[in-house]
Amino acid sequence: MAENKTLCAGLGTDIQSGTFLMEHEGADLLRKYELPIARSTIAKSKEQACQIATEIGYPIVLKGMSREIIHKSDAGVVKVNLKNEDELTSAYDEIVKNALKNNPGADIAGVLVQEFVPKGMELIFGIKKDPTFGHQLVIGLGGIFVEIIKDFSMRMMPVSVDDVEEMLKELKSYQMIEGYRGKKGINKQLIYTICLSLNDLIEEHPEIEELDLNPVIFTDNDAYICDVRILITKHKEKELVRKDLSHLKQMINPQSIAVIGASTNEKKNGGRLFKYVVENGYKGKLFPINPGAKEVKGYKAYPSLLEVPDEVELACIIVAAKHVPDVMEECVAKGVKAAIIYSSGFAETGEEGKKLQEQILAIAKKGNILVLGPNSIGIASPNNNIYTAFGAALETKVKVPGNIGFVSQSGAMGSALLSRAWEQGAGFSRWISVANEADLTTSDFMEVLIEDELTKVITVFMEGIKNPKAFSLASARALKAKKPVLVYKTGRSSIGKRAVQSHTGSIAGDDAVYSSVFKKFGVLRINRIDEIIDVSRAFTVQPLPKGKRIGVITASGGACSIIADLCSEKGLEIPELVDTSEEIKKYIPPFGSAQNPVDVTAEVIAVPEMFKKVVENVMKDPNIDGIIVMLTTNADPGAFIIAQSLIEIFKENDKPLVIGRLGADNIAPQAMELYNKEKLPVYPTPERVVSVMDYLVKYSEILKEKGIT
Amino acid sequence: MAENKTLCAGLGTDIQSGTFLMEHEGADLLRKYELPIARSTIAKSKEQACQIATEIGYPIVLKGMSREIIHKSDAGVVKVNLKNEDELTSAYDEIVKNALKNNPGADIAGVLVQEFVPKGMELIFGIKKDPTFGHQLVIGLGGIFVEIIKDFSMRMMPVSVDDVEEMLKELKSYQMIEGYRGKKGINKQLIYTICLSLNDLIEEHPEIEELDLNPVIFTDNDAYICDVRILITKHKEKELVRKDLSHLKQMINPQSIAVIGASTNEKKNGGRLFKYVVENGYKGKLFPINPGAKEVKGYKAYPSLLEVPDEVELACIIVAAKHVPDVMEECVAKGVKAAIIYSSGFAETGEEGKKLQEQILAIAKKGNILVLGPNSIGIASPNNNIYTAFGAALETKVKVPGNIGFVSQSGAMGSALLSRAWEQGAGFSRWISVANEADLTTSDFMEVLIEDELTKVITVFMEGIKNPKAFSLASARALKAKKPVLVYKTGRSSIGKRAVQSHTGSIAGDDAVYSSVFKKFGVLRINRIDEIIDVSRAFTVQPLPKGKRIGVITASGGACSIIADLCSEKGLEIPELVDTSEEIKKYIPPFGSAQNPVDVTAEVIAVPEMFKKVVENVMKDPNIDGIIVMLTTNADPGAFIIAQSLIEIFKENDKPLVIGRLGADNIAPQAMELYNKEKLPVYPTPERVVSVMDYLVKYSEILKEKGIT
Repeated sequence: MAENKTLCAGLGTDIQSGTFLMEHEGADLLRKYELPIARSTIAKSKEQACQIATEIGYPIVLKGMSREIIHKSDAGVVKVNLKNEDELTSAYDEIVKNALKNNPGADIAGVLVQEFVPKGMELIFGIKKDPTFGHQLVIGLGGIFVEIIKDFSMRMMPVSVDDVEEMLKELKSYQMIEGYRGKKGINKQLIYTICLSLNDLIEEHPEIEELDLNPVIFTDNDAYICDVRILITKHKEKELVRKDLSHLKQMINPQSIAVIGASTNEKKNGGRLFKYVVENGYKGKLFPINPGAKEVKGYKAYPSLLEVPDEVELACIIVAAKHVPDVMEECVAKGVKAAIIYSSGFAETGEEGKKLQEQILAIAKKGNILVLGPNSIGIASPNNNIYTAFGAALETKVKVPGNIGFVSQSGAMGSALLSRAWEQGAGFSRWISVANEADLTTSDFMEVLIEDELTKVITVFMEGIKNPKAFSLASARALKAKKPVLVYKTGRSSIGKRAVQSHTGSIAGDDAVYSSVFKKFGVLRINRIDEIIDVSRAFTVQPLPKGKRIGVITASGGACSIIADLCSEKGLEIPELVDTSEEIKKYIPPFGSAQNPVDVTAEVIAVPEMFKKVVENVMKDPNIDGIIVMLTTNADPGAFIIAQSLIEIFKENDKPLVIGRLGADNIAPQAMELYNKEKLPVYPTPERVVSVMDYLVKYSEILKEKGIT
Repeated sequence: MAENKTLCAGLGTDIQSGTFLMEHEGADLLRKYELPIARSTIAKSKEQACQIATEIGYPIVLKGMSREIIHKSDAGVVKVNLKNEDELTSAYDEIVKNALKNNPGADIAGVLVQEFVPKGMELIFGIKKDPTFGHQLVIGLGGIFVEIIKDFSMRMMPVSVDDVEEMLKELKSYQMIEGYRGKKGINKQLIYTICLSLNDLIEEHPEIEELDLNPVIFTDNDAYICDVRILITKHKEKELVRKDLSHLKQMINPQSIAVIGASTNEKKNGGRLFKYVVENGYKGKLFPINPGAKEVKGYKAYPSLLEVPDEVELACIIVAAKHVPDVMEECVAKGVKAAIIYSSGFAETGEEGKKLQEQILAIAKKGNILVLGPNSIGIASPNNNIYTAFGAALETKVKVPGNIGFVSQSGAMGSALLSRAWEQGAGFSRWISVANEADLTTSDFMEVLIEDELTKVITVFMEGIKNPKAFSLASARALKAKKPVLVYKTGRSSIGKRAVQSHTGSIAGDDAVYSSVFKKFGVLRINRIDEIIDVSRAFTVQPLPKGKRIGVITASGGACSIIADLCSEKGLEIPELVDTSEEIKKYIPPFGSAQNPVDVTAEVIAVPEMFKKVVENVMKDPNIDGIIVMLTTNADPGAFIIAQSLIEIFKENDKPLVIGRLGADNIAPQAMELYNKEKLPVYPTPERVVSVMDYLVKYSEILKEKGIT
């Protein structure tokens, strides 16, 4: 870090608010990391400039250096392709004149004499430091491509060679880098070397806020960084504070619960919460705290937490915000291990609420109490009948246990999704509303869900990340454990961001940075709300495909065509069947298609039994990694026979079988009941079926890329 | 057309299979239409070349002309930037040498001497003749943009200046044409002039199969076409055959029906069809034709159509394919006006079936009988209880009448969508399965639906267009009548196309051409299956918005953020409320948002009445053209109160009110029943809500652009 100090010290300006290095300073810094900056030396006089030019060799480029002039070309202090001493001397004079015209008080540090770089393909490398996730590397093709087509890719630093390879492939202009139509591309080794050097630079100089290498010119065997622009600010390292999470057990599987604010009036939140705890079959000790009641729903009520004669592991606090500090003090006195604060009126409401939130957190810390919330809707654990949660979703009659672990930063969205998912038959291991994340955050619960054997997939509804290091660690652990992490994130647009900021304590970062971070850690980003449930369900029941070769079976040419369109758009392959097409021909009419995509035709209505034979054959074809069945309309009893067949095949095989059914549920109630009973999801549209398969394939590819088997 | 003949005659080669004009021939042709081709003259000798060069002025470009050499640059017969006579003469020799090396038998027509065009921005103009829709104009930026970024736009010719303006705006690189960061753009007048001249060229030379102007260089005030490549083939004009549709009335509103193949066994198609006609309350005369039965479902059966003692307007034919010709002969003898052929085994099954289809069509023509099908699932007309249709969708108990007119080329997809739509409460005026389109086509039924007062929107599930002129005419008429035409089209990808071709008689055209045609005629292309029903329903109940300024109301910051993201992606605006924000503040908590997007907060659960006040205010704000309400979870009775409010506001206002509800239906059964009864659609996801609003806005913009009020 000595280097760092020197660098800042030499500038003598306000580092806090950000200072640009002059190009020659930037060039000196890059040289130390063996970054291929074009040859250049700063000249303090015209004579010196001529001497340097002779050493470098004509033609040369001159650039006036002044801390006061950031946009050099606009200021007229850059002169290129100077072929001899005459041209150099007159250009030198002009630069000095323009610099002073541009800014009469400009302090001119000298004129940079730079080699004139040969023509070649131009790339841009950039680094930006995200306030949440730190340094991000950006790569794009020069000029118009980045500026107008917005064709760039981004990854969280440090990057590996594989990361860089992936980044290049993400570019729309990738073909140009590869070379096309006889035109040579770029030697990628040169790109990798630059990126790895930038890793080192950033590691030793975390104070770099922004860096532009623009352009970097690539010839056959060399790269030339023609210009460098570096912004530095004072660096503050954020340390990951390791929380003591030993009391999480009492938060999620409490042996005893006190509900402070339990009401006898079930129209009130406190009444509803207590009702849900009781009516959903909580088996532990339960203490309603309510000074105005003798009992609540048959449970003896206590006027205060301190009067409960037994131990209390979890306090569920659902009183007005202003009373929460007192209650929290009682929790400390009582030795409570964990608290869920449902009350609103804290950080989400503005400055005053924020102070109140800090106050209760300080009290909780005294007693080493873990806090969920405030403004939380709570936790639902269907597998062990613990529902310390309220919200309209709890009105659902059939609460399905299962293997989705769900963490939501938005209470309303999380609750709505829970109700919709249950309605569709999706089962949950845990459902957690983290809300204000005053203490426990999304990442903490990701850790819980990684450990939880009943959780097969971790799904997050996200507005922003509080603790990026914790999120990175949790994501990396989940990947290693082969538990897919799915994230739907709001605030993609700037208007969206406004809404997020006004509502929650978290600040939405730049959306592209989130994508960059998700890619880095193998997190699957979900793009549509209905896919949150669809894809989560799939990961709880489907085996992972070994590749992206999809067998498609429908009873309609129209459906074949649609699925084929969608697979093609996602990059899924629909290869020929190599072994089974002849066998399939035996079961379908001659005007059907026994090749992939397979069309069994409307004949399936008359002979539903044939469907099983066909699907079995596609399933065992060695050229197929996964199967999509898209049903159109079929009614019971034919639909029921097909459902039986598909469930049987699904159980006996280890390739994914993703089923769609466009026709109404109400003409096939028996079939739909069977699918539901067997927990095999049936998706209503071709788009949703193909998207689910695409996510299964993507995750399988991520595991392969990261070498996790 | 004299010009045309001369052009072809001069070539003396096989025009049928396609011939390229040499560049100087192409240039001569372009000049006649005042297209700004770079100045050039063909030279037959070196001396002549020097003379021409002097006239044009150096530097010049030389290009060897030979019909045998199409790729001139590759063959080394193009030499640029020749500065004087010396350079010219040696280049001339080299061109002749290279031409003969490239093709020793090449017939060299001469060497083109062309002015050396100054630098400028490069565009490409192209024309391709689609076998279905005729000439399409393509515009793109030069080089990489078209080749790698695939950045081009396409429109059916002739194009108007408005079309061209739209085409340019569709380009990702539009900013470059407009000018950016101080760089000058292109004088668009020059582009318009070129496009209009190309209209004229194509009108007089329909034999042009392909045309490339690549590149066209634009300087400040001039355009220079630097190269031209024209492929011509023999032109065959397809004439629009006007069908006699006078018997359509008997097809869609028959006073008497004979069902040939009506069976007493309801497991058979013929039994099911007859059952659906009867049980859905057909009021006309009905004659089952079945030689083996005395009566079917209480109706006297006849052994043959000829024995029916009464007039028969519509014959529903559901017998084995091989018997259809005989039945059709009977129809002719009986004087039947229209026939629906449900039987499969015709063009959709291959060559033999195609012949059979032609045979029955020839018989039908004799009797002037209109034919729907073969392979049709029939017609359903819920408003007048005529269900001459079979297929599993008819098993649906509640068949909702309404205002969607639906035409499907795929029976299975159409039927599945019908059942799903009914399940969602969507109502239909007509549902028509056009299938093989041997006689009546999609376009014919579009005409029917334009006339039909009960039809408010025309929705088409399309695999391909049989008669493009008829489709164009129908689309144009629909636009004039302000009846939106929505088309979902399959076969976007090449794999998809394979499936379409294998299944139907229609050939899927190049998908981009379809988009081009749809845009030309204001047809709205639907991109997702679930949107087919969603958007159709919206157009039957929603007023059109005057603009794209959307007011958003939710009870959750998360939902606000998602809707804002989606609106931003679609280009919908979420402007500030100018008049009503202060009033809204009175009803919502201080930590909500009284600005757009409005967040009423979870307070709405306790005080559902306030929601009405808020929505009313946003509705009347002058800065708002339409409203999106996105509900998350709310259960009855609160949900019911909100439903009442929204329905009341919707009825009293003339701005669209599109409602989403993410929470499960089963926690708000009363609310959902009310929406359903009042026919106000409620969409389950934010994506679907925003997409619906986007289509309403798009259609409103189309009407404005086309000057239809």
